[in-house]
Amino acid sequence: MKSSAMRDLMAVTQRPEVISLAGGLPDTSTFPPDTFAAVAQRIATESCAKALQYGPTEGLDGTKACIAEVMHAEGMRCDPEDVIVTTGGQQVIDLVTKTLVDPGDVVVAEAPTYPGAVPTFSSYQADVVQIEMDADGMRVDLLEEALDRLERDGRKPKFIYTVPTFQNPAGVSMALDRRHRLVEIAHQRELLVLEDNPYGMLRYEGEALPPLRVLDGGVYVMYLGTFSKILSPGIRLGWVVAPPPVLDKINQGKAGADLCSSTLSQLLVQAYFSEVRWRDYVDSLTEIYRQRRDTMLDALARHFPPQAEWTRPGGGLFIWATLPDFIDTTDLLARCLRDNVAFVPGEQAYLDGRGRNSMRLNFSISDEETIREGVRRIGSVVEELVALYGTLTGAESAVRSPQSAEPEAPVEGGQVLRMPERRRRASG
Amino acid sequence: MKSSAMRDLMAVTQRPEVISLAGGLPDTSTFPPDTFAAVAQRIATESCAKALQYGPTEGLDGTKACIAEVMHAEGMRCDPEDVIVTTGGQQVIDLVTKTLVDPGDVVVAEAPTYPGAVPTFSSYQADVVQIEMDADGMRVDLLEEALDRLERDGRKPKFIYTVPTFQNPAGVSMALDRRHRLVEIAHQRELLVLEDNPYGMLRYEGEALPPLRVLDGGVYVMYLGTFSKILSPGIRLGWVVAPPPVLDKINQGKAGADLCSSTLSQLLVQAYFSEVRWRDYVDSLTEIYRQRRDTMLDALARHFPPQAEWTRPGGGLFIWATLPDFIDTTDLLARCLRDNVAFVPGEQAYLDGRGRNSMRLNFSISDEETIREGVRRIGSVVEELVALYGTLTGAESAVRSPQSAEPEAPVEGGQVLRMPERRRRASG
Repeated sequence: MKSSAMRDLMAVTQRPEVISLAGGLPDTSTFPPDTFAAVAQRIATESCAKALQYGPTEGLDGTKACIAEVMHAEGMRCDPEDVIVTTGGQQVIDLVTKTLVDPGDVVVAEAPTYPGAVPTFSSYQADVVQIEMDADGMRVDLLEEALDRLERDGRKPKFIYTVPTFQNPAGVSMALDRRHRLVEIAHQRELLVLEDNPYGMLRYEGEALPPLRVLDGGVYVMYLGTFSKILSPGIRLGWVVAPPPVLDKINQGKAGADLCSSTLSQLLVQAYFSEVRWRDYVDSLTEIYRQRRDTMLDALARHFPPQAEWTRPGGGLFIWATLPDFIDTTDLLARCLRDNVAFVPGEQAYLDGRGRNSMRLNFSISDEETIREGVRRIGSVVEELVALYGTLTGAESAVRSPQSAEPEAPVEGGQVLRMPERRRRASG
Repeated sequence: MKSSAMRDLMAVTQRPEVISLAGGLPDTSTFPPDTFAAVAQRIATESCAKALQYGPTEGLDGTKACIAEVMHAEGMRCDPEDVIVTTGGQQVIDLVTKTLVDPGDVVVAEAPTYPGAVPTFSSYQADVVQIEMDADGMRVDLLEEALDRLERDGRKPKFIYTVPTFQNPAGVSMALDRRHRLVEIAHQRELLVLEDNPYGMLRYEGEALPPLRVLDGGVYVMYLGTFSKILSPGIRLGWVVAPPPVLDKINQGKAGADLCSSTLSQLLVQAYFSEVRWRDYVDSLTEIYRQRRDTMLDALARHFPPQAEWTRPGGGLFIWATLPDFIDTTDLLARCLRDNVAFVPGEQAYLDGRGRNSMRLNFSISDEETIREGVRRIGSVVEELVALYGTLTGAESAVRSPQSAEPEAPVEGGQVLRMPERRRRASG
């Protein structure tokens, strides 16, 4: 599916009657308007002219101090000299790719990877090699095999892109031993790693694992952070920490891309960090999102068929569900939109057409009742398809509802059901 | 000079004791903090959660309505469907170049061109052909010759980049007959034009000339607008109006670059346009900047040597001054920084090393006394160099001060004086 067609589809999710489990939105309705008013008043009184003015390309020192606080809370030290403030975390992915990648160069990513990185990698014509994950994150053993294969072809990745903690979209975290091994590999093979960590502080259980950057000491690991999930995505502020030669090129790229990040947003962060204890808000989000995750897990168990599987994230915003492989989730989405419910089809998280029977489900933006109803609606369509598939192939005995025995009319965008002869792999 | 060295030099201009005529900053200290407070309070009361949330990649409808108002004030109609809200005007240059240019493709620009576009064009490895200007803007006759030359080589520019009104850095405007002819050429040769118009409303005299987009009807002319000079650059909001196929690609590029423009900034614009008459603030800026322009023109006449020339801008933020061609303004800048005054050396506005005896001077950010003193300091160094040149070459009889007869020690960054044998052209 072309990205424009996908965009048309996703535009439908903006309709108020649609339950969207598709986005990656934090619930900004939880942010106290009084705090916003106090912070804005502080800017009006203390720094209005500065807030409205251009700032240095690399960001304001006071904002970097706030960033250092967040990094400290996640177990890292950072020198403000090594930080560039960016227009959201997305810009880091864009600038790093722009800086390091020429057309045809290899980038390694997880399979599935952050769907928002896919068009960025594509726009620089990167050749993205995606490494399978399991419940413990990226299969670092498979990474090594892939690197060996590439080396035999005389190729070396420009960088490895990973979301090691509460991954988007899979919701899993990279186990500690794999983190150590990944950093070892980076050092042995002199490979840059871009560690994308938007969700590290949204942890619902267990102990925090050390970021790759801590294990690496900041030699090969570039670090991407953002205020989007701990404060607000609407202010568009993220940051990158990288070794000086790379940082200098990123800064040049940033000057060409948008001159500097919003000074207003940067001063808003500074005033916010002065005005309140920023971790209190993160703690409140964590409580809310934990409940919503639990609600979604319950709803999946209740409404999804036994052939479906899904991850149990210890944090972050997403659950990754995998359906029987005769179901194409892009087609399923078109069908689900008729019932006013949306999700991200799995193939959006791949550059090679994989992921067609998977989906990303977001639990952070919807209240618990909405989550239950959304999952119920998707489950209901999936159940129909499973039953229909059973009827058509004789492979399933349980046809749960009589009406699903009737042939399904093709939906816009293609067939919902993937017939056996069209499948790439035998069903498990 | 490498851009990193230039950046180091420009970093010095941040020191409080330095008079910087180098930037392109509007004077945001003129913006009423009470208005800022009222606007922010309105957001806190009415749309806090929305302001902190992601928005659509192409921008909010309410913000596009404000953009339509600004375009209307400049004599244009625009359909919100044809607009994308961007992270400042700079992002438009970046996204248009990214969308249209492959390495080696030709882009046409003015000579000199906006210095901030230079690294952007370079980063996409565009082959930039720069067309000379005079007091009436781009020499469209020379453009046609260049297009013919390119055509003979089987090459066609991907787009023509122009700032037709109160050009940055030259301060001149394209005459009406040239505007008509440029649009004719675009239609005849099927060439896209990117019209960059940040300064159109900052007019200090005369009647407004129609934007190229009006003459073209929006067929080949893409339009770049920005809130940076009529409200605030710190909010990082600009926009692009373009034909649908190009717009769709720009939107894809924007999604990959930073997902969406700041929702906070977009709602701030909306609240501001509801709260006050936005043109009143533009009118107040126009009054202030007109005075400062006049002050700078007076100071140049007083302190610059008779061999120097400069433009007399009818609007905008900049004067372009050209010195005798034995003076290298990049070296001159290093020398001037010892006297705590800065400007942009002309070669920053070229991709081919031209402009070495020119400089861009900004008059919008400094008060009148500061402008006088800044120009006096630069003039004083220039005068020394002119006198020294006369002494060393015998070409000038008037050595005004005895001390300038002593040989000048080389300054950091190279020789200030360009000796005759090093000159590329004979002195006029």
